[in-house]
Amino acid sequence: MTLDHTSGPYMPSRRSDVPPFMVMDVMTAAARLEQSGRRIIHMEVGQPAAPAPAAAIDAARAALSDGRPLGYTESLGLPGLRRRIAQYYNDKGGLSVDPHTVIVTTGSSAAFMLAFLALLEPADRVALTTPAYPPYRHILTALGCEPVLIRTSAETRYALSPQALLDAHRETPLKAVLIASPANPSGTMLSGEALAELIAAAEDAGIAVISDEIYHGLDYAFPATSALACSQRAIVINSFSKYFCMTGWRIGWMIAPAPLVRPIERLHQNLAISVPTLSQIAAQAAFEGRDEMEAVKRGYEDNRRLLLDGLPQAGLDRFLPADGAFYLYADVSAFTDAEHDSHAFAQRLLEEAGVAVTPGADFDPFEGRDYVRLCYAGAREDMTEAVARIANWLRR
Amino acid sequence: MTLDHTSGPYMPSRRSDVPPFMVMDVMTAAARLEQSGRRIIHMEVGQPAAPAPAAAIDAARAALSDGRPLGYTESLGLPGLRRRIAQYYNDKGGLSVDPHTVIVTTGSSAAFMLAFLALLEPADRVALTTPAYPPYRHILTALGCEPVLIRTSAETRYALSPQALLDAHRETPLKAVLIASPANPSGTMLSGEALAELIAAAEDAGIAVISDEIYHGLDYAFPATSALACSQRAIVINSFSKYFCMTGWRIGWMIAPAPLVRPIERLHQNLAISVPTLSQIAAQAAFEGRDEMEAVKRGYEDNRRLLLDGLPQAGLDRFLPADGAFYLYADVSAFTDAEHDSHAFAQRLLEEAGVAVTPGADFDPFEGRDYVRLCYAGAREDMTEAVARIANWLRR
Repeated sequence: MTLDHTSGPYMPSRRSDVPPFMVMDVMTAAARLEQSGRRIIHMEVGQPAAPAPAAAIDAARAALSDGRPLGYTESLGLPGLRRRIAQYYNDKGGLSVDPHTVIVTTGSSAAFMLAFLALLEPADRVALTTPAYPPYRHILTALGCEPVLIRTSAETRYALSPQALLDAHRETPLKAVLIASPANPSGTMLSGEALAELIAAAEDAGIAVISDEIYHGLDYAFPATSALACSQRAIVINSFSKYFCMTGWRIGWMIAPAPLVRPIERLHQNLAISVPTLSQIAAQAAFEGRDEMEAVKRGYEDNRRLLLDGLPQAGLDRFLPADGAFYLYADVSAFTDAEHDSHAFAQRLLEEAGVAVTPGADFDPFEGRDYVRLCYAGAREDMTEAVARIANWLRR
Repeated sequence: MTLDHTSGPYMPSRRSDVPPFMVMDVMTAAARLEQSGRRIIHMEVGQPAAPAPAAAIDAARAALSDGRPLGYTESLGLPGLRRRIAQYYNDKGGLSVDPHTVIVTTGSSAAFMLAFLALLEPADRVALTTPAYPPYRHILTALGCEPVLIRTSAETRYALSPQALLDAHRETPLKAVLIASPANPSGTMLSGEALAELIAAAEDAGIAVISDEIYHGLDYAFPATSALACSQRAIVINSFSKYFCMTGWRIGWMIAPAPLVRPIERLHQNLAISVPTLSQIAAQAAFEGRDEMEAVKRGYEDNRRLLLDGLPQAGLDRFLPADGAFYLYADVSAFTDAEHDSHAFAQRLLEEAGVAVTPGADFDPFEGRDYVRLCYAGAREDMTEAVARIANWLRR
């Protein structure tokens, strides 16, 4: 029997025709080189080189050792974890969060999916900036919504202005806006005032705010402000992946306005049943590892300084001194041309110098061909080696 | 500030208006009674009382102890796990499966989501039986597709016939059909011949087949046949939750026809990034625990026998001698009336006798008011106690 790949009942749907999350493909290419014996410096994936807090690992190990099965949990998450997350806001910023509005999710990925499904009808328009985290627009597209891309640039530190948002809203009404500070891929942040103004402008115009706060805790220039400090209704999405170094555990959370909690619970019951139990147990204990994670953060600050000093000497000097997260978004247009854009640059950098970075087109369909993103969440010696390799390679 | 719950930008979408997965709400009600000190026998949730195979737990513990961070994996899953799953088909049924068509997912829940998004356009019609696993129709609805419910009954062992499928297709074309054998909630199975006929009828008519094989391995009457034995193109969904006792680990898989693999990979990269790493490591080792799981299965067989003998004496005698899975689907219409349906029956059984079961409306919007589902994956002493409690309660 020959399989028919061009027609018939098993053809892919149109809505599955989303671009790849390119960084995952770079990761696969890097892994292939590693299997052939090359040593690759990983600056492509946004993930910490450090493991989860010891307290989290110990809690998981204890749960594995007590002989009881790891069953499903309540769909919205273990009550103790939901309370602990609510308390986190109180501890950190004096914000009062009702544990009943805390929803535990399988990474922030699942939180976006649930928030979009719970809030948005098909064809609803959602504003987001370019550059931005690529899955925002691809999840929206897969769910039949329309991402409205508002261009930003290095001149304005990639910030979304209330004016630009309202201009887009005037053309055709927006249902929601996605905000991220610290931002991915640029690492830039909005001041508390700028965030408050943006959220007020959005909500006054009837636009729902979804604030991606996954890089909160990783702020170097000044402390990041949660959207919850500006609005009692904003949807806030966060994760244990970045600050708590728990990417592969796939655990995150969302704070949702009260009317959305039960719809999200029903969606979650049907779409996922519950979040991995061991990850929930570990996440609850992770909060005890704050000192450990602050030390990891200081490592990122050292790495950041190393790159901010070293890369210009290596020949890469067009980027902003990122305020938070663990990324630099570098303009490499001096090394590209119409035929060989930043994708080709990244490919050659990987193959010839063994440094994996992510091409900007992943983050920005308009200007991304001029940019690459470098993640500095790796080990210090890897960052030093990366600067040396990039310097040697650019010199050739 | 008062929050506006009836209008404004944070109102739930229409597509979020899916019914709850009722079993999760029963579980919450049971947990509340337990917190007040009651001992509850759990027959509501379809989850084994036994833990994951020792080899799986050991592998997870080893991964936690080696000091390396648990990072993201390849989006389609760890290559070793994908190969091991492919081999499972060879070992079990002599079926040749290409590891590149194996997709590791966060439980079968995520597999359904990905399969539906990859295969179906909004408004596509998908046939499924009533009764059936409730999230099928609710995930489809949330994604804008139309579940086409084909009624089945105890007289035909809740089997979907090729004729009924083609009748529904003639009315308005179907894009796909969902098949499950062993079935949830009834535990009934299709013979190998009946399955082959149904799949051939579907594919000849241009209807894609999605086969939910989550209860494979738990067959008592005769061995279950995989759709892969009947079709080289069917989408097969399975999980480590049931046979391998790993519900809370949230890990499953899908075998997809080649043209769908890359679309599913792109969707997965954007929607989930990757599957929990520790669960993948444990799942790969779980295959070494087959002997242990066969012993667990023999326990289900004993429980099944206990209920098949005991429940009729207790006064519940209208159900089929389920061929597989770990459910009985009992007609309780002798104890209900127009005002007090099986939902009220289940509520009273929980509150008055401390036995949690799931009302049939969850599985069947038409006839479910007459039924409850009892899961017998619990401990043997709990099953004995359940029969005694039900007998006492019905006698009152």
